[in-house]
Amino acid sequence: MNGSPLVIASNRGPVGFVRDESGDVVERRGVGGLVTAVGGAVRGREATWIAAPMTDEDRARIGTPTPVALHDDCTVNVHFADIAPDKYDSYYNEFSNRILWFLHHHLWNLARPPEFGDEQRAHFDAYREVNERFAEILAREATPGAIALPQDYHLSLVPGMVRARRDDLRMAMFWHIPFCPPDQIGVIGDWGPALLEGMLGADVVGFHTEWWAANFAACCNSVLGAKTTEDTVTHLGRTVRVAAYPIGVDIEGITAEAARPEVARAREDIDRIAGDRKLLLRVDRTELSKNILRGLMSYGAMLSRRPDLRGRVTHLVLLTPSRGDVPEYQEYTRACVARADAINARFGTPGWKPVTLEIEDDFARTLAAYQRYDVLLVNPVYDGMNLVAREGPVLNQRDGMLVLSANAGAAAELGEAALIVNPFDTRDTTMAIERALEMEPSERAKRAAELRKLAPGTPPREWLDRQIEDVSRA
Amino acid sequence: MNGSPLVIASNRGPVGFVRDESGDVVERRGVGGLVTAVGGAVRGREATWIAAPMTDEDRARIGTPTPVALHDDCTVNVHFADIAPDKYDSYYNEFSNRILWFLHHHLWNLARPPEFGDEQRAHFDAYREVNERFAEILAREATPGAIALPQDYHLSLVPGMVRARRDDLRMAMFWHIPFCPPDQIGVIGDWGPALLEGMLGADVVGFHTEWWAANFAACCNSVLGAKTTEDTVTHLGRTVRVAAYPIGVDIEGITAEAARPEVARAREDIDRIAGDRKLLLRVDRTELSKNILRGLMSYGAMLSRRPDLRGRVTHLVLLTPSRGDVPEYQEYTRACVARADAINARFGTPGWKPVTLEIEDDFARTLAAYQRYDVLLVNPVYDGMNLVAREGPVLNQRDGMLVLSANAGAAAELGEAALIVNPFDTRDTTMAIERALEMEPSERAKRAAELRKLAPGTPPREWLDRQIEDVSRA
Repeated sequence: MNGSPLVIASNRGPVGFVRDESGDVVERRGVGGLVTAVGGAVRGREATWIAAPMTDEDRARIGTPTPVALHDDCTVNVHFADIAPDKYDSYYNEFSNRILWFLHHHLWNLARPPEFGDEQRAHFDAYREVNERFAEILAREATPGAIALPQDYHLSLVPGMVRARRDDLRMAMFWHIPFCPPDQIGVIGDWGPALLEGMLGADVVGFHTEWWAANFAACCNSVLGAKTTEDTVTHLGRTVRVAAYPIGVDIEGITAEAARPEVARAREDIDRIAGDRKLLLRVDRTELSKNILRGLMSYGAMLSRRPDLRGRVTHLVLLTPSRGDVPEYQEYTRACVARADAINARFGTPGWKPVTLEIEDDFARTLAAYQRYDVLLVNPVYDGMNLVAREGPVLNQRDGMLVLSANAGAAAELGEAALIVNPFDTRDTTMAIERALEMEPSERAKRAAELRKLAPGTPPREWLDRQIEDVSRA
Repeated sequence: MNGSPLVIASNRGPVGFVRDESGDVVERRGVGGLVTAVGGAVRGREATWIAAPMTDEDRARIGTPTPVALHDDCTVNVHFADIAPDKYDSYYNEFSNRILWFLHHHLWNLARPPEFGDEQRAHFDAYREVNERFAEILAREATPGAIALPQDYHLSLVPGMVRARRDDLRMAMFWHIPFCPPDQIGVIGDWGPALLEGMLGADVVGFHTEWWAANFAACCNSVLGAKTTEDTVTHLGRTVRVAAYPIGVDIEGITAEAARPEVARAREDIDRIAGDRKLLLRVDRTELSKNILRGLMSYGAMLSRRPDLRGRVTHLVLLTPSRGDVPEYQEYTRACVARADAINARFGTPGWKPVTLEIEDDFARTLAAYQRYDVLLVNPVYDGMNLVAREGPVLNQRDGMLVLSANAGAAAELGEAALIVNPFDTRDTTMAIERALEMEPSERAKRAAELRKLAPGTPPREWLDRQIEDVSRA
């Protein structure tokens, strides 16, 4: 394997800094799938990591790289880019999360929003500026022979900006969310070609599935007139590898987490909620793309058509708060809570609460619930990969079944063992939940064994190594 | 040219029957682009036409073909299919217009609706039943050697159903609206493969542009695993031609209409509204896909940023009522009216009303407005073809400019001469309207001449002949 130094760029860094109650500056580990995956993958390497500052203490470190011991054998140099809070809001909350996220998850009704006027143009300008800040540091800090790894939809312009400054650098960009087809990219007008050309500054552009990779290539063809093959896009004389690198689970990490005493304590509580009933579990952020509402509708429809199942199943819905300051998210979360209440009001009895919906950030509780579920429902409208669908089967102790959306990246690898559903079809979802709850023990055991085999997938370290290997050959 | 008898199947027929005030049954000509186009194209041919009954008098004719003189030289035999009103509602208003229309025009926010439950399944069952009624008559009435012409998204299952009964018949299906890409077809689940396989029962499947044809082929590949080339789809051993047949304007027909005295009278009124100001015109149905709201926003933004243009332009918005019983349409129409009122309240003066918005069905007024406009705004989010963009330049008398959405089928042929806009980008649209209003006379004259040359396109008769020619060779 290649020993080139790595320069990672991602919106959220591996650590942040805050002042605690006594006024001391303390280091706080970054959260989220990207940081966990990439952070786990840099072990034993020399790495620089460029991130956006989130706190006053992060901002105090702008211009001064901070060495951070990420593992025993790995210290990364963290650089915070010079981004003012209002610029960050415009780049992150507005352009990245209300425009790019909505575009690639098909969350717009195109008859009404999105409106792209002066306000949105200002958000794109902020996005470009922030990408410039990242690109400047990357181009400056990367030693000759280094490999640059810009991450995700927040930084799609970075590869092109770096390419313009440092043509010698090898770059692998990874895109963690779905990618829309050509019919949709036109929705964002001139920004489409800008973003595509930005990404094509890399040598390798990676996605979690062939589906998103093919959509990206088709957009390059349709919008830029680029030439494509099965795994390349050629534009303005440069050929870029465009391929799927599906990420898996950090088994050691999650197994160690699950062995902690908090998880055992949380497990007692989960056992109390479930009792001797079957446990139908959902674990998600309060996110429009996760399809929580249709999941609840499908469960309600099952209780309605199958009175014999009432009292024999409990649905636990564990939601982590997300984007609570965006009006669409507030409204959606309210609708989910109202639907859970309605199910409890209609079907509940003194001895049985059909749905327990919790909105809090409690990872130990999630891990305990993974162990105990009989059926795990993962039905996003679209999802880059979805690690819940992988982590659940890795930790589950009851031959639990997985009901999985065909539009989650994970379906490409878990499709054989999971029960695949059309996420828009509540009837289809109802029938799959029923089937999962009532599956014969022999089929259940066989599918669960298959799930345990497939769920881990490619470990994060190997996931990154494959990209590095391909970029080294490029 | 081929003299084979034709069997047309379309939701709306060339005539309907009603009882007038004195109780006599009278014939009423069918309206709408499809009926006009296909009706004009059958001149001099032997034709049978199968349609859904719309009135009690239509229903009284079920089982009894009615000969109708469509032109001096053409009598068609009209068959009304046996469809009860509640079944019609389910097939037409619900499945065709609230599911298929929304799907292919990207009118859903996928995080919320569409929900596909038992109710929607019943609508699909009705759709299938109605398609069966059409297919039965078609298979029974078509003489050997006849060519079957099922029309549009209401009847996508008909070709497959006819093929199962009469493998000897040649069939050209025409799809008048946009076709969604593979990422979207999955939204309707199992119905997707059913509809695609239904359409592939034909020998030729035609669309208004290469774009929709390519999307259809890509859906067949992705959903059915069919093999595709640039203009064919091969599935289950049959190869179907999939191609673009863009329709144009019936010049003689529309010129004759425009010469009627009602148009001259309406013209006086239009001239009074416009005065010596520039006239910005929109002509549309009150339809979500037409993007009326963003058009008004763009005009309002122009008045806001260009005070010098206030009082020098009038925006006439002529809307024909459409689908007024669908809640989404009611709400959208209200929002459009409110936006027009807001512009008038903000910018209007005693001598100048910035927007005149009319909701009524007055074709003479439309034709008069076509003659008088300086700028015609046609900015649909998606549109199969859009004949307003063609009819306007054909009748216009003032070297009027056309501001045209890149997502209208008409853009494929008129793109060189029109000012093309991204329909989602209000700023882009504002700038195009400004440019069109202020264009130098020499450029204006040159573009207008080009528009007059391109706008007519392929006459309906030739449009149908091309399909018949291709199906005869199949």
